[in-house]
Amino acid sequence: MKRIYDIENGEEFSLFVLIKTADVKTARNGNPFIAFTFQDRSGSIDGMYWSATEKEIATFQTGKVVFLRGERDTYQGQPQVKIKAIRLAEAGEPDDPTMYVERIEVKREVLQEEINEALFEIREPNIARVVRKILHQVDNEFYTYPAAKRNHHALAGGLSYHTVTMLKIARQLMTIYPDLNASLLIGGIILHDVGKTVELSGPLSTEYTFKGQLLGHIVIVDEMIDRACTEIGINTDHEAIVLLKHVVLSHHGKLEFGSPVTPRILEAEVIHMIDNLDASINMILSATSKTKAGEFSEAIYPLDRRKMYKPTFK
Amino acid sequence: MKRIYDIENGEEFSLFVLIKTADVKTARNGNPFIAFTFQDRSGSIDGMYWSATEKEIATFQTGKVVFLRGERDTYQGQPQVKIKAIRLAEAGEPDDPTMYVERIEVKREVLQEEINEALFEIREPNIARVVRKILHQVDNEFYTYPAAKRNHHALAGGLSYHTVTMLKIARQLMTIYPDLNASLLIGGIILHDVGKTVELSGPLSTEYTFKGQLLGHIVIVDEMIDRACTEIGINTDHEAIVLLKHVVLSHHGKLEFGSPVTPRILEAEVIHMIDNLDASINMILSATSKTKAGEFSEAIYPLDRRKMYKPTFK
Amino acid sequence: MKRIYDIENGEEFSLFVLIKTADVKTARNGNPFIAFTFQDRSGSIDGMYWSATEKEIATFQTGKVVFLRGERDTYQGQPQVKIKAIRLAEAGEPDDPTMYVERIEVKREVLQEEINEALFEIREPNIARVVRKILHQVDNEFYTYPAAKRNHHALAGGLSYHTVTMLKIARQLMTIYPDLNASLLIGGIILHDVGKTVELSGPLSTEYTFKGQLLGHIVIVDEMIDRACTEIGINTDHEAIVLLKHVVLSHHGKLEFGSPVTPRILEAEVIHMIDNLDASINMILSATSKTKAGEFSEAIYPLDRRKMYKPTFK
Amino acid sequence: MKRIYDIENGEEFSLFVLIKTADVKTARNGNPFIAFTFQDRSGSIDGMYWSATEKEIATFQTGKVVFLRGERDTYQGQPQVKIKAIRLAEAGEPDDPTMYVERIEVKREVLQEEINEALFEIREPNIARVVRKILHQVDNEFYTYPAAKRNHHALAGGLSYHTVTMLKIARQLMTIYPDLNASLLIGGIILHDVGKTVELSGPLSTEYTFKGQLLGHIVIVDEMIDRACTEIGINTDHEAIVLLKHVVLSHHGKLEFGSPVTPRILEAEVIHMIDNLDASINMILSATSKTKAGEFSEAIYPLDRRKMYKPTFK
Amino acid sequence: MKRIYDIENGEEFSLFVLIKTADVKTARNGNPFIAFTFQDRSGSIDGMYWSATEKEIATFQTGKVVFLRGERDTYQGQPQVKIKAIRLAEAGEPDDPTMYVERIEVKREVLQEEINEALFEIREPNIARVVRKILHQVDNEFYTYPAAKRNHHALAGGLSYHTVTMLKIARQLMTIYPDLNASLLIGGIILHDVGKTVELSGPLSTEYTFKGQLLGHIVIVDEMIDRACTEIGINTDHEAIVLLKHVVLSHHGKLEFGSPVTPRILEAEVIHMIDNLDASINMILSATSKTKAGEFSEAIYPLDRRKMYKPTFK
Amino acid sequence: MKRIYDIENGEEFSLFVLIKTADVKTARNGNPFIAFTFQDRSGSIDGMYWSATEKEIATFQTGKVVFLRGERDTYQGQPQVKIKAIRLAEAGEPDDPTMYVERIEVKREVLQEEINEALFEIREPNIARVVRKILHQVDNEFYTYPAAKRNHHALAGGLSYHTVTMLKIARQLMTIYPDLNASLLIGGIILHDVGKTVELSGPLSTEYTFKGQLLGHIVIVDEMIDRACTEIGINTDHEAIVLLKHVVLSHHGKLEFGSPVTPRILEAEVIHMIDNLDASINMILSATSKTKAGEFSEAIYPLDRRKMYKPTFK
Repeated sequence: MKRIYDIENGEEFSLFVLIKTADVKTARNGNPFIAFTFQDRSGSIDGMYWSATEKEIATFQTGKVVFLRGERDTYQGQPQVKIKAIRLAEAGEPDDPTMYVERIEVKREVLQEEINEALFEIREPNIARVVRKILHQVDNEFYTYPAAKRNHHALAGGLSYHTVTMLKIARQLMTIYPDLNASLLIGGIILHDVGKTVELSGPLSTEYTFKGQLLGHIVIVDEMIDRACTEIGINTDHEAIVLLKHVVLSHHGKLEFGSPVTPRILEAEVIHMIDNLDASINMILSATSKTKAGEFSEAIYPLDRRKMYKPTFK
Repeated sequence: MKRIYDIENGEEFSLFVLIKTADVKTARNGNPFIAFTFQDRSGSIDGMYWSATEKEIATFQTGKVVFLRGERDTYQGQPQVKIKAIRLAEAGEPDDPTMYVERIEVKREVLQEEINEALFEIREPNIARVVRKILHQVDNEFYTYPAAKRNHHALAGGLSYHTVTMLKIARQLMTIYPDLNASLLIGGIILHDVGKTVELSGPLSTEYTFKGQLLGHIVIVDEMIDRACTEIGINTDHEAIVLLKHVVLSHHGKLEFGSPVTPRILEAEVIHMIDNLDASINMILSATSKTKAGEFSEAIYPLDRRKMYKPTFK
Repeated sequence: MKRIYDIENGEEFSLFVLIKTADVKTARNGNPFIAFTFQDRSGSIDGMYWSATEKEIATFQTGKVVFLRGERDTYQGQPQVKIKAIRLAEAGEPDDPTMYVERIEVKREVLQEEINEALFEIREPNIARVVRKILHQVDNEFYTYPAAKRNHHALAGGLSYHTVTMLKIARQLMTIYPDLNASLLIGGIILHDVGKTVELSGPLSTEYTFKGQLLGHIVIVDEMIDRACTEIGINTDHEAIVLLKHVVLSHHGKLEFGSPVTPRILEAEVIHMIDNLDASINMILSATSKTKAGEFSEAIYPLDRRKMYKPTFK
Repeated sequence: MKRIYDIENGEEFSLFVLIKTADVKTARNGNPFIAFTFQDRSGSIDGMYWSATEKEIATFQTGKVVFLRGERDTYQGQPQVKIKAIRLAEAGEPDDPTMYVERIEVKREVLQEEINEALFEIREPNIARVVRKILHQVDNEFYTYPAAKRNHHALAGGLSYHTVTMLKIARQLMTIYPDLNASLLIGGIILHDVGKTVELSGPLSTEYTFKGQLLGHIVIVDEMIDRACTEIGINTDHEAIVLLKHVVLSHHGKLEFGSPVTPRILEAEVIHMIDNLDASINMILSATSKTKAGEFSEAIYPLDRRKMYKPTFK
Repeated sequence: MKRIYDIENGEEFSLFVLIKTADVKTARNGNPFIAFTFQDRSGSIDGMYWSATEKEIATFQTGKVVFLRGERDTYQGQPQVKIKAIRLAEAGEPDDPTMYVERIEVKREVLQEEINEALFEIREPNIARVVRKILHQVDNEFYTYPAAKRNHHALAGGLSYHTVTMLKIARQLMTIYPDLNASLLIGGIILHDVGKTVELSGPLSTEYTFKGQLLGHIVIVDEMIDRACTEIGINTDHEAIVLLKHVVLSHHGKLEFGSPVTPRILEAEVIHMIDNLDASINMILSATSKTKAGEFSEAIYPLDRRKMYKPTFK
Repeated sequence: MKRIYDIENGEEFSLFVLIKTADVKTARNGNPFIAFTFQDRSGSIDGMYWSATEKEIATFQTGKVVFLRGERDTYQGQPQVKIKAIRLAEAGEPDDPTMYVERIEVKREVLQEEINEALFEIREPNIARVVRKILHQVDNEFYTYPAAKRNHHALAGGLSYHTVTMLKIARQLMTIYPDLNASLLIGGIILHDVGKTVELSGPLSTEYTFKGQLLGHIVIVDEMIDRACTEIGINTDHEAIVLLKHVVLSHHGKLEFGSPVTPRILEAEVIHMIDNLDASINMILSATSKTKAGEFSEAIYPLDRRKMYKPTFK
């Protein structure tokens, strides 16, 4: 099926797309119009809807799937839709918004299996029970949320994908450094970003929630562990529980990055470093995937705005 | 009664004192000896106990009250005890270690009354219930713990004294800025350092506890609030509860000072600034109380090692 | 009387307004036009004056009060005036520019009384005489100038209002900390920002002056104290004078904020902290006064761009 | 055989040891004496040699192996040798200084094999030839030098051991991130610290050399690559060569850590992060290997002086 | 001859100019147009070329000299060319692009003489030979390249002009501080920025080259010295060579400014400071040359965005 | 005449020396003793005076010249005096303390002549009069004070010597950059550190004064200029006076180094840079003057603790 990315300049088309943003503005003549951004998994495109009625403004809102008929045009060098007709998708049509949002390419089942395998490495029974309980509580969000609003792994499913990649690295490191404590390392990685299921609003038009802004995902996951202990009946003064909390609290590595304590056990330091490693690689690969070999990418903001070169050889 | 501070050079004396530290060392001749620091509320003095037996080493440990007979001597310009006799304090004698530790001069009852009055300013019922419940749980520690291991208010009772001074300032600010939210401001101040009752070991030979080092007092008090809600049956998503947690989590003002989130409501910013204000005044007054008018104090480390001048006029 | 804030879209109106800015530009057709911003105490609005003559350009300049007839229109979502007629305000009409500038709501007399009361707390005679002399010299500017070009208390009268609020806090602190030296604290607060009467150009279209840019208000007030001593006949080596200079020189708290020396007496530190406290509260209240309960404010730039939440309960 | 670590207090012993340091001082009586530190692989111990003759001073110098007869004593709580006799080790005796220096436990052959295997992953022919040539040039130093004067891997053989561990991590990452360029990643890791064979003086009493201090190991290895190209006949403008230089030049990650350029290709960033990861793990494991389970280690200086906790469970 | 700077508004003109930039864009009507910036030594001016054919787009590219007929117009307050005719400059016409680029006003011969005189101050024979050899290799680039892409001395010939000014300062300092080592100081200054002949693309539309971005001019000049030694047959371990490399490697003064080592000899520190001094003076004089006496210049970005005042008196 | 530096170990001697420090301590036996440091221009030496009487303690104080009879001994590797007799220098004997303090080697007359010549370059009459007046006021201190308590030019006469060296550099720069404003450059350099005549206590046992600690030399010189204007009758709003103040206020270059304003005219920036240049060269030459060619100096603290290499060739 055709997608936004495939339409050529001047081409007429009819497509189901998601309304990513819908800003109501006033034209020079005083009439309201809607400045849309439409989206599907192949990309996004802008379009102005002139002289919108109040009812149309109420209908065509962010997050809705619409059937759009238009012609691809160019404005100031940017592609744009000349909107010819627009209506909401109906029952029986492909009206699930999540189908239009970019998401990771790996299937949920594959990730779940990786998580399940890793769970078996947790030998300390209290950590094992707490991790399983929390995973069970956030099961759906864990596999559908992004890992961030922007920057690294900012796409649906990114949270679990990022977690699983960190687990792969960690399990390899355990063969190289046998002193690593598997229970803390594996348990800590699985939980480290689980607070994002409360901090963020979800995979669609991701925003920070009220609790996300005022408490932050690091404290949120600490509370999750604390409550899980109470519910299971584990003493929260137990060394393993204090250390599990510690590795998630300290996983940003430094106070200035938002951790209330700095890493004080080996596994906390290692989780912090693997987290950074996977995030950096993900951001660089995202940027260079849009770059021709032999050229530099766009500036990557979280990496000090560096532009990364893509070699021409293997 | 005579106290350490009162003894003159060359004077013989008999006193009950607390063993503040007792380090076992080996003398040039290979025999073990104990390097004591003795303490009462007037000050402290060192003394060497030569050729200590194993039994004596096991008996005279940190935190014990002893009856000490000796003569005040001088070594390298510092006062020192020539120990003549030493024994543990017995039942019926003044053997309560807390009697020998420097503490604030205000009575607990006075502080309790100030706290109680402030509690009436909390109009939001959920905050009021949570604050009262936690205060009840830590009642004894709250009035006996210091506010820190060193630096400001580092003496027994300092935690409640510091809290009450902050409450006084806050209540005055509420008359100057009527927009301040009393429930969050008063509730936040009372709880802001309550986590130190877990982070620190107590008023005697204060150290950081295991949980203190790995979680920190800011996260500890967040958990206390969370658990209090569960026990009382308050929904932790309630706006007032999220904001109460927020003001305690953010009271260090900046991430690099250990808060996992920065202040996002007025009262959080104000609590942070009052906290700093009282801490700074306390450190400066401590330093200048030992300084003659017209001279500079010792360097105050947490204030960028500044030496503060004491004016000669009022 | 109607004001800019009250006019509705499409409404025709006639109003006295102040020209806040008047930028001359050239239109596509080569003719000059004036891009105005008009202002009264309720707000401001833009308007284009097409095909302006040289005489009109010379007449309608920043700082002039004009009688404006027009119609409120909208351009790119922003309100705008379609100018129908414009002329200078004449004698007998409300042509005092200061009437159109936002100013504090407290009357000058009220502030003056607060200052006068505070003056009686200054017991050290040299400080008392210097402070009174300088206040007398800058009397008019002190009560009409803003405290800053932008950020906190950036409105007419803001300088004295900010000073009086600091005095209120200081006088309360003196009851809580009786060791505070009233002469230095009160004298220092009154003078701390008096240099802004030279550093800034005034309440109207506030800019930094030549001396303001090259010397800064901190050095300017130091010179004012020095000269006042010479004029009164006080020895500038007198301890009280050196300390008075010190508290104003150090009131920015740290070198990197523009103080040439850091606080070395208690009162210098306290003035610095009260200054910050009032400035922060002022900026937060300004931002949240434009915010609905339950929402976040606009980003506040001097407070690390934080957006502040406004609670829904008291 | 007995070693320094095994001798008990008061025990008499005869041992071959290495003179780690030999400082000549003057005693109170005006006579010179030698303050020795003796070393073998089990540890080190101090000892004073009183009334040393000029000949003895000339004989017993840093780096010499001696036969030492003495008695273990204690001075100020520290073990010390009471020297009874001392003479240089003779031919036929164990007089190779490197036998007394702590070194990694893995055999050179094992490391060499790992390096050789990794070399086969370099598919880009120019990189492959340059890396092999340089490895050949520094063959002996590469397997005997430490990776640093102090901090991480600061023991004989540490350079190659650290390099091999990084290679292990890199090869695992290549399975997780197949986009990684093997030639640059493997080639870059092998060469990244090879400049230390010139920057440091060797495994014995390691110091920075003249060139090490003035050029630094990062520039030194860049020159090695440049010369290898000239010798082999490879154009130094070849993309692969420029990139190989780039990954070694940028491997400290940031300018302030001594790299003249920051990472601009994925592999440069990854090498930097693996380098940090292995160094941190090595320092933490060194510290906790001397710590009892359930306690905190000594402060680790390069890790912000953090003390690391050693859990009691696996 | 008339130049861009001399044309008045509304005037028709015919001129040879250089195409500084030529960006192809799409107009509202879908047709491509070229947004030109034309340049000669007196300044630059924009102009739109509507409905450009593919052939025209291919012809009128950055770096070409064209004969332009047009009329000076104004658009949004900025001067602009209404293009009437445009064609490439032909053989026999002034078609050398470098004639249209701003360059220093001093003649190459004058600079060469200054360099030659300075060369005689280098008494150390190895340094003398290396410096002469490298100067010979980059002879043309050295006198035509700018010293930077923007900021200081960013005009054709700026590299040699900056170098010569530094030499003048250095030679004066040698009379004030006779301990300065002339060979290192003079040799170091001449070579310090020679790497820019590889790092930058040239005087026309200056960009960073591939090697410039990945290696940087500091490492590039180190390699030049190293290769020159090999070619001449000088041992690169020679103290004078190591120090010559050191002064160029460390001339940015601090690691965070891109030097891989910090200055460790007097001359390295002095070169760093003279470099800064000349760069700062050059930037300030450039800015104030466009400023009226009694006013402040535009903000100078590399100098913390400061605006510099131009006094009205001498 | 013999000096401290010349005495050999074991030699008996009689010398006039200055008491640099005299700390009273208590010996193990409870008797007070004086720990002296004696000084002449060749160096300094310690010595203990046992069982000092109260009268001796009152007599032999810091800053006194004494006639000392003793024997040079060694204690813990350091030279020390075994004191045999000590008495105050009497009238007629060399009892001027300044004769025993290290001072610059250039004669005051030479420096004065340099200053006088430079004064003629100040063409702006107001600046000329202010500079001459202030120089006249501090005439004696200017030629005898050090430029700092420690670090650069920290010896008697260092203030004027440093100033004159800066003038030499400035006058050379004026030939290279003819745009430099001589009045501001020369006037600013002469005054830039004149405030140190109030900030410091003098050449003997240099300490910061009360005003030095609370106001700092930068503000002190600003006040000197302000007062000089009042006394001469120059309007302090005169552009030249404001700029003269500006160059001295901003000569530390950045706020964090203690300037209340940053340089806003060319000459301010240049004075700042010349000041740094001469201070750095002075510190490096001081350090390397005690270093053998081919070795590294001691660490220089204000230069980031760098150790500087001394080349073996010219």
